[in-house]
Amino acid sequence: MLELRLVQGSLLKKVLDAIKDLVNDANFDCSASGFSLQAMDSSHVALVALLLRSEGFEHYRCDRSLSMGMNLNNMAKMLKCAGNDDIITIKGDDGSDTVTFMFESPTQDKISDFEMKLMDIDSEHLGIPEAEYHAIVRMPSAEFARICKDLSSIGDTVVISVTKEGVKFSTRGDIGAANIVCRQNTTVDKPEDATVIEMNEPVSLTFALRYLNSFTKASPLSNSVTISLSSELPVVVEYKIAEMGYIRFYLAPKIEEEDEEAKS
Amino acid sequence: MLELRLVQGSLLKKVLDAIKDLVNDANFDCSASGFSLQAMDSSHVALVALLLRSEGFEHYRCDRSLSMGMNLNNMAKMLKCAGNDDIITIKGDDGSDTVTFMFESPTQDKISDFEMKLMDIDSEHLGIPEAEYHAIVRMPSAEFARICKDLSSIGDTVVISVTKEGVKFSTRGDIGAANIVCRQNTTVDKPEDATVIEMNEPVSLTFALRYLNSFTKASPLSNSVTISLSSELPVVVEYKIAEMGYIRFYLAPKIEEEDEEAKS
Amino acid sequence: MLELRLVQGSLLKKVLDAIKDLVNDANFDCSASGFSLQAMDSSHVALVALLLRSEGFEHYRCDRSLSMGMNLNNMAKMLKCAGNDDIITIKGDDGSDTVTFMFESPTQDKISDFEMKLMDIDSEHLGIPEAEYHAIVRMPSAEFARICKDLSSIGDTVVISVTKEGVKFSTRGDIGAANIVCRQNTTVDKPEDATVIEMNEPVSLTFALRYLNSFTKASPLSNSVTISLSSELPVVVEYKIAEMGYIRFYLAPKIEEEDEEAKS
Repeated sequence: MLELRLVQGSLLKKVLDAIKDLVNDANFDCSASGFSLQAMDSSHVALVALLLRSEGFEHYRCDRSLSMGMNLNNMAKMLKCAGNDDIITIKGDDGSDTVTFMFESPTQDKISDFEMKLMDIDSEHLGIPEAEYHAIVRMPSAEFARICKDLSSIGDTVVISVTKEGVKFSTRGDIGAANIVCRQNTTVDKPEDATVIEMNEPVSLTFALRYLNSFTKASPLSNSVTISLSSELPVVVEYKIAEMGYIRFYLAPKIEEEDEEAKS
Repeated sequence: MLELRLVQGSLLKKVLDAIKDLVNDANFDCSASGFSLQAMDSSHVALVALLLRSEGFEHYRCDRSLSMGMNLNNMAKMLKCAGNDDIITIKGDDGSDTVTFMFESPTQDKISDFEMKLMDIDSEHLGIPEAEYHAIVRMPSAEFARICKDLSSIGDTVVISVTKEGVKFSTRGDIGAANIVCRQNTTVDKPEDATVIEMNEPVSLTFALRYLNSFTKASPLSNSVTISLSSELPVVVEYKIAEMGYIRFYLAPKIEEEDEEAKS
Repeated sequence: MLELRLVQGSLLKKVLDAIKDLVNDANFDCSASGFSLQAMDSSHVALVALLLRSEGFEHYRCDRSLSMGMNLNNMAKMLKCAGNDDIITIKGDDGSDTVTFMFESPTQDKISDFEMKLMDIDSEHLGIPEAEYHAIVRMPSAEFARICKDLSSIGDTVVISVTKEGVKFSTRGDIGAANIVCRQNTTVDKPEDATVIEMNEPVSLTFALRYLNSFTKASPLSNSVTISLSSELPVVVEYKIAEMGYIRFYLAPKIEEEDEEAKS
């Protein structure tokens, strides 16, 4: 039996909004330690990893590890019916082919039960080893989202270059070229407004803006985003979920040195 | 001669927004007692009845009862041109084939006249007898609108069931099923936030969500909605218009007991 | 060399939003006195004239007069990437086939360079003589925009008639007719809320609403608009740009007295 009660139900709504456009169907894995998901996007280019730790739930009962295959669009449709202040409880049973989302309004005057059919989904769980990164950039999530959106109006890919002074986002397209430089800045009123750069060696990598733009749908979950870059590894774009866990997006850099030379 | 001056002109704008998607053309009936309309929706399933009593107008002159056929979309287009704080005056003449809407801005610096062609519309006026209902639910209009919209993302019909404890809205569709229960609740700060149930006997009826969603377009007219249910009668969904009258929507329940049994 | 630094960068964003739907490609002319543009709309019916005087820039360096052909849609795309509080600097070189827009965030933590390709555009500069007008109406720009939009839902053209008492906007279409009268009103709290009429002789002219609606996209630049009318001249619709200059739109009246007679 499974019963996970999340007082701040809007978190789960935001999680679904963050991943439903990237991933169609996925298994949610429940264990004693938490509620998690790992899934490739539908074009098998990007990887999403979600963790909501059990401690973050008001009540967390999971008698036996359980994997529940869900269509994320249908799940998002149901969660849209929860009020932003509602408490959400996820209920499941071992043998059952359904999961139930219960929404309680703050005054307890309105109680909703949404029952969704589960799916059988084949999936392999990839082990993601902890890694050393050449550079880690933490910046306001709204700023990162704005930059990815702005550059998309000019080009299709972005080169992210990190030096000690700052991080540069560059693109090029038919109508011209653009460079946006964000300087390291830690003297801010609110810590989440800071742009902080930890760098072991300079790095410059190219990514498809389409995917980065998808990742930024997680911005409502956290005021800051952490971008971990290394020339031999996929970038990790991480949004922390306060006191509960995270959403991490992984994306391999584009190898296009020849193209770059031809262009320049 | 007809001259109806409505200080709170935004009321008339809201009335048109509430009914223009349901009804294309309709006769407005003016008499000494008020300005009213009764019309079937274009698929002849639902009935709308509007009453704006003469006492609610600042000035009300109607020398002779008059029926004016109007295209509600065109009328709504013209009323959209009135400011929200404008005074609206409806002017007509016995022989004329036009009606004039005059809008005066609060400062009287801007005066607009919109003249619309009238139409000949055949219509029979149905007598709607006062009836006894098994159950009458009064609830916040925004809550009712939210529930109808939410359930529409799951199914096409809703079962409304009333017991002494509360009212339950249920639906079922391809992706799953949903139940929303609103409890009776009269201990609220504002009377319009109350959910009040008057019940003579329990009732459970099925309706097409498409029509209920149309009805909820009247929500801006009133903070609360009254739903009157009886197994032998169409449901009445009523929005009071402060100090002037009401909009009432009538819709026959669906008879689908066999379907329900097959499903369950 | 060209370097124009505009502290209130949002002005330039608003200028582009005001003209990009009317004009596709145009030459911006830079001289010691200012940054200006004159262009016909793509159907060669309306004329736009923009002036941003050099005194309005924080820093204005223009060694030699320069004409830069730009695609306004691409330019607007790039300016959209500037924050509303950003400082915008326009940079160019005599021989170069590109222009650079630099955006600096208020805190200087984010610096963006957008480089756009220039185009060769044939254009003749029309001399527009100062003229005497029969009537000049100054009114709130939001009110003028609202009137043009409202009348467009009824008809395609508007007759603007000015008398000492006020200005009347009239239209006629399939669903009916509309007249909106704005009275002269100078006793207002804020000067920009005034409607002021200077009239030498009464005038009544017909214009295509499509173009007037395009012109009103400049409303965010100024709280008031000045409409100068004369029976032998194109109307001038002018939006002042505070302390810098103006956008003026010119549109020839429609000659349709026969049509008017046939209709009435």
